[in-house]
Amino acid sequence: MKSYRKELWFNIPSRRAFINITPQVEECLNDSRIKEGLVLVNAMHITASVFINDDEGGLHHDFDVWLEKLAPHAPVSQYRHNAGEDNADAHLKRQIMGRECVVAITDGHMDLGPWEQIFYGEFDGNRRKRVLVKVIGE
Amino acid sequence: MKSYRKELWFNIPSRRAFINITPQVEECLNDSRIKEGLVLVNAMHITASVFINDDEGGLHHDFDVWLEKLAPHAPVSQYRHNAGEDNADAHLKRQIMGRECVVAITDGHMDLGPWEQIFYGEFDGNRRKRVLVKVIGE
Amino acid sequence: MKSYRKELWFNIPSRRAFINITPQVEECLNDSRIKEGLVLVNAMHITASVFINDDEGGLHHDFDVWLEKLAPHAPVSQYRHNAGEDNADAHLKRQIMGRECVVAITDGHMDLGPWEQIFYGEFDGNRRKRVLVKVIGE
Repeated sequence: MKSYRKELWFNIPSRRAFINITPQVEECLNDSRIKEGLVLVNAMHITASVFINDDEGGLHHDFDVWLEKLAPHAPVSQYRHNAGEDNADAHLKRQIMGRECVVAITDGHMDLGPWEQIFYGEFDGNRRKRVLVKVIGE
Repeated sequence: MKSYRKELWFNIPSRRAFINITPQVEECLNDSRIKEGLVLVNAMHITASVFINDDEGGLHHDFDVWLEKLAPHAPVSQYRHNAGEDNADAHLKRQIMGRECVVAITDGHMDLGPWEQIFYGEFDGNRRKRVLVKVIGE
Repeated sequence: MKSYRKELWFNIPSRRAFINITPQVEECLNDSRIKEGLVLVNAMHITASVFINDDEGGLHHDFDVWLEKLAPHAPVSQYRHNAGEDNADAHLKRQIMGRECVVAITDGHMDLGPWEQIFYGEFDGNRRKRVLVKVIGE
């Protein structure tokens, strides 16, 4: 069994954003030379997500509006976590969008459906944060 | 390390449905002859889910009503994604229910709790769609 | 490829709670002697979650209030599942918080970000329930 590990770093210049990281993960897979196995891609921070959905700007806008409705940022005083912090909503939003995805590796490539793309979801940006890519297989 | 891959195909004759796919995944596991490892089961489409919960009709009705409340289909014009499409709500619903599950394999069987069953969750049906089953182990 | 399996048992003396199980999972990892691979940690019950977030009491209170708003327990008659049962809300809450997490193993340790902690989320307690820890790797 072979394994491979890489951190992808981000510094998003806004509170929230969705970034397509599929090319970076595919590059990790090439570096790993693993042909059959699994790749785990996870946010290393608890106010961010890694998820798979559509690379379509309208949908990303819809996600943002929807998450704000389900877990509003303001008023920040509605959350006990916000004692000296203001990111409780980011911890909640990340639960809906998820921490991680696991993708099959087949013939040296990610075994994705026709529209599946991997995203980094930032809910408390303006700082350096990381995603972990771990590949295991042969 | 051994690996195994199979696609399960569905053509659900309605917009939404929950289908118990536990027997098909168990069959994949038998075919794979893998005794210890992990099985990844994921929707290959971004308006569908694979998740684990209870095989109980009342609960599936409750899921449907609940998801419609959290991410309503209509009016379709409330979503920017719905320019020529009407399935933005399906992209949102799938985030709550999840894309994938990873199940342990022990002694050649899925290592599930007493009531755990694997479901395909369709949120934009009336077309052919796929689930990927990938097994790795020994 | 090596594998390791352990069940963690809980009997939470309340309907809902969040329990930090990171030390128990790390202990499993030590027992497994696996240095590179993946660890799957999943609830074996469909009214409970395993998830990764912050070990902060204020946030756990916020999670509880938020989940109750998105998927209220009462009135229990609002759910068809509640025919002789009263835990439909627990099945819903668990979908938002998730069934499982998969964590990378690097150099014999869980490869977690600075604030990542693993939690057992109970939504229908007052009974004995289990979490599965499955490790694969080398």
